[in-house]
Amino acid sequence: MASKRFDQDTLPSAVQASQPWPRDAWYVACTPDEIDGKPLGRQICGERMVFFRAGNGMVSALEDFCPHRGAPLSLGFIENGSLVCGYHGLAMGCDGRTTGMPNQRVKGFPPIRTFPVIERYGFIWVWPGNAEHADAAKLRHLEWAESDAWAYGGGLYHVNCDYRLMIDNLMDLTHETYVHGSSIGQKEIDETPVKTRVEGDEVVTSRYIDGITAPPFWQMALRGAGLPDTGTVDRWQICRFSLPSSVLIEVGVALEGKGGYDAENTSKVYGMVVDFMTPETENSHWYFWGMARRFAVQDTALTETIRDGQGKIFAEDMEILHRQQDNLDRFPERKLLLLNIDAGGVRSRMMIDKAIAAEAANAGG
Amino acid sequence: MASKRFDQDTLPSAVQASQPWPRDAWYVACTPDEIDGKPLGRQICGERMVFFRAGNGMVSALEDFCPHRGAPLSLGFIENGSLVCGYHGLAMGCDGRTTGMPNQRVKGFPPIRTFPVIERYGFIWVWPGNAEHADAAKLRHLEWAESDAWAYGGGLYHVNCDYRLMIDNLMDLTHETYVHGSSIGQKEIDETPVKTRVEGDEVVTSRYIDGITAPPFWQMALRGAGLPDTGTVDRWQICRFSLPSSVLIEVGVALEGKGGYDAENTSKVYGMVVDFMTPETENSHWYFWGMARRFAVQDTALTETIRDGQGKIFAEDMEILHRQQDNLDRFPERKLLLLNIDAGGVRSRMMIDKAIAAEAANAGG
Amino acid sequence: MASKRFDQDTLPSAVQASQPWPRDAWYVACTPDEIDGKPLGRQICGERMVFFRAGNGMVSALEDFCPHRGAPLSLGFIENGSLVCGYHGLAMGCDGRTTGMPNQRVKGFPPIRTFPVIERYGFIWVWPGNAEHADAAKLRHLEWAESDAWAYGGGLYHVNCDYRLMIDNLMDLTHETYVHGSSIGQKEIDETPVKTRVEGDEVVTSRYIDGITAPPFWQMALRGAGLPDTGTVDRWQICRFSLPSSVLIEVGVALEGKGGYDAENTSKVYGMVVDFMTPETENSHWYFWGMARRFAVQDTALTETIRDGQGKIFAEDMEILHRQQDNLDRFPERKLLLLNIDAGGVRSRMMIDKAIAAEAANAGG
Repeated sequence: MASKRFDQDTLPSAVQASQPWPRDAWYVACTPDEIDGKPLGRQICGERMVFFRAGNGMVSALEDFCPHRGAPLSLGFIENGSLVCGYHGLAMGCDGRTTGMPNQRVKGFPPIRTFPVIERYGFIWVWPGNAEHADAAKLRHLEWAESDAWAYGGGLYHVNCDYRLMIDNLMDLTHETYVHGSSIGQKEIDETPVKTRVEGDEVVTSRYIDGITAPPFWQMALRGAGLPDTGTVDRWQICRFSLPSSVLIEVGVALEGKGGYDAENTSKVYGMVVDFMTPETENSHWYFWGMARRFAVQDTALTETIRDGQGKIFAEDMEILHRQQDNLDRFPERKLLLLNIDAGGVRSRMMIDKAIAAEAANAGG
Repeated sequence: MASKRFDQDTLPSAVQASQPWPRDAWYVACTPDEIDGKPLGRQICGERMVFFRAGNGMVSALEDFCPHRGAPLSLGFIENGSLVCGYHGLAMGCDGRTTGMPNQRVKGFPPIRTFPVIERYGFIWVWPGNAEHADAAKLRHLEWAESDAWAYGGGLYHVNCDYRLMIDNLMDLTHETYVHGSSIGQKEIDETPVKTRVEGDEVVTSRYIDGITAPPFWQMALRGAGLPDTGTVDRWQICRFSLPSSVLIEVGVALEGKGGYDAENTSKVYGMVVDFMTPETENSHWYFWGMARRFAVQDTALTETIRDGQGKIFAEDMEILHRQQDNLDRFPERKLLLLNIDAGGVRSRMMIDKAIAAEAANAGG
Repeated sequence: MASKRFDQDTLPSAVQASQPWPRDAWYVACTPDEIDGKPLGRQICGERMVFFRAGNGMVSALEDFCPHRGAPLSLGFIENGSLVCGYHGLAMGCDGRTTGMPNQRVKGFPPIRTFPVIERYGFIWVWPGNAEHADAAKLRHLEWAESDAWAYGGGLYHVNCDYRLMIDNLMDLTHETYVHGSSIGQKEIDETPVKTRVEGDEVVTSRYIDGITAPPFWQMALRGAGLPDTGTVDRWQICRFSLPSSVLIEVGVALEGKGGYDAENTSKVYGMVVDFMTPETENSHWYFWGMARRFAVQDTALTETIRDGQGKIFAEDMEILHRQQDNLDRFPERKLLLLNIDAGGVRSRMMIDKAIAAEAANAGG
């Protein structure tokens, strides 16, 4: 009944090599409230992980697999800073090594895989790839998440499509007219051309629409900021993709003729639509969405109102994305059009492919 | 971001070659009420199609695939006679060519596949095969669908079995005794032999049962026609299969000794059980069922009563057909018996196989 | 339309050779109430079977496949001692030969496979393997099922995991502390080592825990037997695995210091947890569970109370077993630990493997 000792770096991975995502990168794994007092099981980039807050307050991520009999550790509980398996009581430390088990000597137990984790900006971030490459400095700075000048609210959806279809969706807001006609969409959006460019490590697709009536969402924002909501405005949408998988969208309206995007803060309302897409499998992902705003930041009721509104809007996207994925699965050989409005998604995918190729080259060298 | 131009006849098909159905044939696709003011997505003979009524009132059928990003066009809406994609507003004409898109030149957009369509006899018919072979003259004439001497009511079921199991079912009404004992079945049915023959392009299985008590359905029909419902009757069931996939069943009873099938109209009640089986996949089909009758044709309440009764009866068939399909999948190597009562189904399948083989030979030549 | 005659011993089996269970063995198939007046379809060891009680009162088991058109015979009914197919009325005898069919000569119909069956101890037992090897003497004697000194109550669960995971579960009751903390579990269980040994054709894992407070279930049992429920007791759990797949667990408590397991009946309460695991597929099984007890045997209300309690407890196991199976499917290459507490499951699996190998050698000779 002896157990063989494994080295941690030779543990077999449950995930294949040719995945459509970079592995050596920080992905949003969950929000702190999801691991409040209990472990959370979540599959990320094909890896089944369990997240928990150990005794020292630090968050850990491990393979969600008890080395004893293979039960998911996420069914267990936290005790004395260890994650205790809910089947037979094996206690697992945050380093992937068994810390105890009733009536057993555990020194020879094989370790399980750990994943680097950072808690910052209101999220738990995980590095699903090679732990030796993990580098906290590679986590992008998010100003809106740390400054009192901003307010934030958001949510999480599980979406049954390739995470890249969501990137396409967000890097081309033309769809707002059709999918979100009753809230943020308006006809002028798809009548205005977009410009796509690469700026450093970002793909940027921008659209400026001048002299229009504000759609309902922005009328609400103008009122919230004490500005008139009935006149005409200049509107902007600047979508910024960055690796591995976020789209941050600068959005706002300024009273007409006050300078648009560059207007004084007293003449405009603006914010940032926040979108983190974390792959689960090749055909599904976790979608962390939200809005950071620079107006009426003390108004917590407004935060809830916006969150509810966004939740409804993104649910409309989910419906069409599920159906799009399903249709693409049925017509696997069909090529899609790549129009001007699609440039943002196309460029983002090129950046992703380049990162995947660089990882492969790195692994082979 | 240019788009390559495709020729329509080289578009890849989502469907494999060796399908268990003739492709060059008219199948019932839907009923007009299903496309009233909105498009309908439906998979037929393995092809995902969208049906819609364009500005000219004509019905069109296209691949249910937006050439832009692959969303199902059936999620969209009709505007100015075009089918507008609900994702980014691409407008598709009934010829499979893009008619417009906000802020885009669409001349170079690849066409999508169209399917020949006819609207007639209260149904929309589609030709899933080679459009060049489509011939309206090949649609069989349905007298009962055009004459005021007949009344019709029907419905639609989605059935999880090979459409040929439903043909077997309908070409051998012996099962009525067992599956439909409480409505149309009666012991005398399976005590009376059937005769099966090929008449021109039809397979005909007939059964004549003389001097019996009418089962509940026919007692109701006799009362509806003002005839006595308590005496004995002569009953007939004449099942007619024709390509690609319909079974029309002449059914009726005459007061005993008045000539049976050939009795005067004043001594009999009769009608036509209407069954169109449209393959969806190899293991599922759309079942358009109904009854045309020559008695009490003004009585619309009776039409509803019969429709309700048929709906319940065919639901009984669905249960056993689902389970039969499931069982056949589990015992794939077992040969089935081919009894006398099965001759109708066997002959019908031979006719189907011959049509498939002829298409294959035609395609190869 | 002639039918070819098959010999019964050349009938193809729907099941592959390399199954993870012995085939030449008696498995619990169902309980008598499940075939009361109607046939029962159930898949056992990969074989779809139909069980029914024929005219002579004997239980029969056949392939659940009508030789006519492949419908499941279990959808039919019993008439004149035969099992009548619910589709077209083929009547099947308990020897797998067609006894009649309306308007048909059935002499040439191919037989279907029969399975040896025994009704004993309140269960129907089936032999899924080679019928020629079936031997009633190989059915183990169950004293508690025949003696008035015992009362029995039980139930049936369908469990989505390999039946051997349930054997592991039952041969190591350490999990009671974690999975069943609110009922039968208690901390002392996992603090007490177990001993595992092979006794003849049984694997026995035993644990004796002296001088503890009785957990809620046993307090209830003590009260039911008129014994004090607040003092300390000596407790035992003796798990006995035997082929093909049962775990019978002697359980009980005696008032402390009265001799424990060997105490007089007036100082102890005890019983037998009964577990028969019948494989359905490689990843699912039928779990017949129950409890035979030697105390308060006349108290039928107590039988129901215990049954309810066991039902809730085993439902807790099902949850973790489903998740364990799912996790093992995701990490197929990971080896599990084999600890001291796992010895019972390990030894039981060795006995199973040996029986499978012996069958294979037997078949090859």
